[in-house]
Amino acid sequence: MINPALGVCAPKGFMAGAVHAGIKEGSEKDDVALILSDTLCSAAAVYTTNIVKADCLQVTKEHLADGKARLIVCNSGNANAAAASGYVNALREAAAAASAFHVSQDDVIVASTGVIGQTLPVEKIEDALPHLVLSRQGSEAAARAIMTTDTRLKSAVETIVLDGKTVTLGGIAKGSGMIHPNMGTMLCFITTDAAIAPELLEKALQKCVKKTFNRISVDGDTSTNDMCAVLANGLAENAEIVQENEDWTVFCEGLQTIMQTLAIAIASDGEGASRLLTVSVQGASSEEQAEILARSVASSSLLKAAMFGRDANWGRVICAMGYSGASFDPQKADISFASQQGEISVCQAGREVKFDEEKALDILSQDSVEIRIDIHEGQETATCWGCDLTYEYVRINGEYRS
Amino acid sequence: MINPALGVCAPKGFMAGAVHAGIKEGSEKDDVALILSDTLCSAAAVYTTNIVKADCLQVTKEHLADGKARLIVCNSGNANAAAASGYVNALREAAAAASAFHVSQDDVIVASTGVIGQTLPVEKIEDALPHLVLSRQGSEAAARAIMTTDTRLKSAVETIVLDGKTVTLGGIAKGSGMIHPNMGTMLCFITTDAAIAPELLEKALQKCVKKTFNRISVDGDTSTNDMCAVLANGLAENAEIVQENEDWTVFCEGLQTIMQTLAIAIASDGEGASRLLTVSVQGASSEEQAEILARSVASSSLLKAAMFGRDANWGRVICAMGYSGASFDPQKADISFASQQGEISVCQAGREVKFDEEKALDILSQDSVEIRIDIHEGQETATCWGCDLTYEYVRINGEYRS
Repeated sequence: MINPALGVCAPKGFMAGAVHAGIKEGSEKDDVALILSDTLCSAAAVYTTNIVKADCLQVTKEHLADGKARLIVCNSGNANAAAASGYVNALREAAAAASAFHVSQDDVIVASTGVIGQTLPVEKIEDALPHLVLSRQGSEAAARAIMTTDTRLKSAVETIVLDGKTVTLGGIAKGSGMIHPNMGTMLCFITTDAAIAPELLEKALQKCVKKTFNRISVDGDTSTNDMCAVLANGLAENAEIVQENEDWTVFCEGLQTIMQTLAIAIASDGEGASRLLTVSVQGASSEEQAEILARSVASSSLLKAAMFGRDANWGRVICAMGYSGASFDPQKADISFASQQGEISVCQAGREVKFDEEKALDILSQDSVEIRIDIHEGQETATCWGCDLTYEYVRINGEYRS
Repeated sequence: MINPALGVCAPKGFMAGAVHAGIKEGSEKDDVALILSDTLCSAAAVYTTNIVKADCLQVTKEHLADGKARLIVCNSGNANAAAASGYVNALREAAAAASAFHVSQDDVIVASTGVIGQTLPVEKIEDALPHLVLSRQGSEAAARAIMTTDTRLKSAVETIVLDGKTVTLGGIAKGSGMIHPNMGTMLCFITTDAAIAPELLEKALQKCVKKTFNRISVDGDTSTNDMCAVLANGLAENAEIVQENEDWTVFCEGLQTIMQTLAIAIASDGEGASRLLTVSVQGASSEEQAEILARSVASSSLLKAAMFGRDANWGRVICAMGYSGASFDPQKADISFASQQGEISVCQAGREVKFDEEKALDILSQDSVEIRIDIHEGQETATCWGCDLTYEYVRINGEYRS
């Protein structure tokens, strides 16, 4: 197994690095990350569904119109959203990266994260980029540079075999607050040495995002800046994927695995989170209905607070199912809590079950807790991920901008 | 002006009271409230939209099928939702109240609030009800008995003139957590001595709930037990309202005023809240679009946490507008913060405005803060109410059931 910290540098032909530009006053950390492929890549991205979109997303969309890119530049400390000169500044950030690394400006993906509504000090980025050092071990530095309130670095690597060739996928992500299903919901950059046509890469990304990043929620807020971008440079020398064949299916599985790993890492590192919540719904008539239920439970502030308090308050689970909009018969619903300490049934056929409070407390005291729901309507399933709601979330978000 | 604490006893011909049944182990407070009209009333109610409904709502619906009722009984400490024998126990609670006060069981409205998923100890209620004392000053006792995590008693009185007669409306409410738009979203009991036909009372209630209780949010969770019920006994001797005439309009205005007062009292007393948030949207193309925007902003966890921190982080306002689902042009949006300390513009035409941080802090430090939004698309407006998100919310909901 390859070290997951190799991240976006694990596939052949990618370098990464970071530099300190001083975007946020008083911060000493590196705040500009860069990922570069040795050769031109097939490229695709998905963006936030928020209609207030950061201008960098617009610039990226224009640059990806031809399905090609070579470089990703991303700053933290300022979202460049709802900010004066936003579009011009996003273009300048892309141009500065292109110029520093001799790449065509049209092949640059540009992303930003940080405070909304303040002018991006783009000249600081322009000054810093020529000093940025790239290396084959630079993924960790890049992953750190895009972190804001994240407490843990998020990086993953997967290998698959396509056409007899070993193909590697690597990814880094950031995201902790303003996280809610529906698209990107954070920043995620994935590299691969697979050979795949842009349209097939785009399709694979769209398919995988639905089951991964769109299934996590930290606080119900969908950001203005979310983006998940993939670069595929073809250096693994597999026969290029140009149709939805078996290779494409294998590629999608690899992509989904890496995206799911990063998505769960984001949910688990939700602002102030003390534990990861996994909500699994089975027995639904459709995957969509299962997802609506799982998402509603994973997003409930009351349930999230109960999980912080390690309180087996399953009434809040069935309540969140009830207002989710999904159609199901509450009289058939079973609910249990599970973790590495075992599983305990708390509700059967929509009514209370006597359970051992001590055992429930033990189960809910773990770092990772699963809420299992069976509605006995059909065969479909879905899983969503979230985290508990803690004092720390309130502290972080009560003080963030100041 | 009549003392608002007179509440449901302010209109002619109503008594109220409370008694301690000991529903929740260890609690000493009165936990059963009762409101009785001297005569049979026109009656109407609205209920939660949650498909997991407490059984007491079903019993109430059946009892209100004829548009008539005389008595409201409500217990706190147990929601009797998703609980074993829920329907039978709700019927028994209604029967016990009917028997104690010589009212037909079909004329009883029954409501519950408290923990979901535990069997209601109905025999305790049956034992206690014969000891309950009613009086013309009993509204305050009833209002206290239905409180759970509420910190303040919610009571209001309005007078109007119909057909030359003074008509009084009185109401009490409870609600603090699990509060979110769409229906009742809490418990509210309103009495009036107006003479009005059941269908017109029902219509008035439906109309007013949309602009009051459906416009508050504390935490995004819609409860299983919400109910807003009105009893009108006709003792003011106005000509009975039997059509949507001018009297009906005046009645609706009075009803809306009292419901708005109680709705704002609930938002302001949201679990752990340190301040009331009022979100006013103007310049919308329709009231519906204005409401979607106002509701999304009032419900944003990130914005609510920023308001707790007195941080003029307007980026979170425009972000919540952007993912609300409303259609508007972000480039035309103006945003300002206001309170009794004045008003400060923070965003014009979708972009940042330089503002005095000291003044903003002063404005946001007040108990009641307004977020004013103008999207310059049309003439329609809507206002929603919410509260900030605090450490105390997390503490209350992390420990509630235990």
